[in-house]
Amino acid sequence: MASAHETSRLISADKVEGTAVYNISGDKVGNIKNVMIDKESGKVAYATMASGGIMGMGSDYFALPWNALTYNTDIGGYRLDVDKNKLEGAPAASEDNLVHDLEDQNFGSKVHDFYGTRPYWQQ
Amino acid sequence: MASAHETSRLISADKVEGTAVYNISGDKVGNIKNVMIDKESGKVAYATMASGGIMGMGSDYFALPWNALTYNTDIGGYRLDVDKNKLEGAPAASEDNLVHDLEDQNFGSKVHDFYGTRPYWQQ
Repeated sequence: MASAHETSRLISADKVEGTAVYNISGDKVGNIKNVMIDKESGKVAYATMASGGIMGMGSDYFALPWNALTYNTDIGGYRLDVDKNKLEGAPAASEDNLVHDLEDQNFGSKVHDFYGTRPYWQQ
Repeated sequence: MASAHETSRLISADKVEGTAVYNISGDKVGNIKNVMIDKESGKVAYATMASGGIMGMGSDYFALPWNALTYNTDIGGYRLDVDKNKLEGAPAASEDNLVHDLEDQNFGSKVHDFYGTRPYWQQ
């Protein structure tokens, strides 16, 4: 388990980046692009996911609440606890716009509502 | 302020990586190598810093508590609130060993003691 990038307790952000994300049916829905940290609390707020256009939407960058992701060693990736159809309506944006959109707490609230997670600023 | 990597509230881990770190006297002491996340809480536990051998030690990878780092826009990097002489005695390891060492909570306690920060597992 111990490596230069992970222990049983810690994981490096660069190991998270690039990791595959699967929906509840086991379909791959994208890869983690980046880890967004809340500066004030030092908490990971979101992982951003690039979808590669799989979901056929104009914009293909998603903000995923960190606590909506569960790492699954069997599939070697994160499992997102939503079904595929639901994911098609997920809050998304272009790569350039996503972080800007997250500046707006209304967008952040939409994201947390969508995945049924508690907003990171209330944790 | 808003970019694909940072807003006033959020910053991406890949923007943190590579950022310079300065001591209290304004001397550059290294660069951030990686961001280590506590899986359970989702908190950033440490930033690892490569020193480039500036401090003349055998091992040149340091674990810095996230809350010991303050970003300073004037210097374009993180300020670590310790003086240069003190940093020479900081807990350090080789790149390969540092994350492994952090698995041991005694090492983590030493790090937090050294920088006078509260351990991330008690926050």
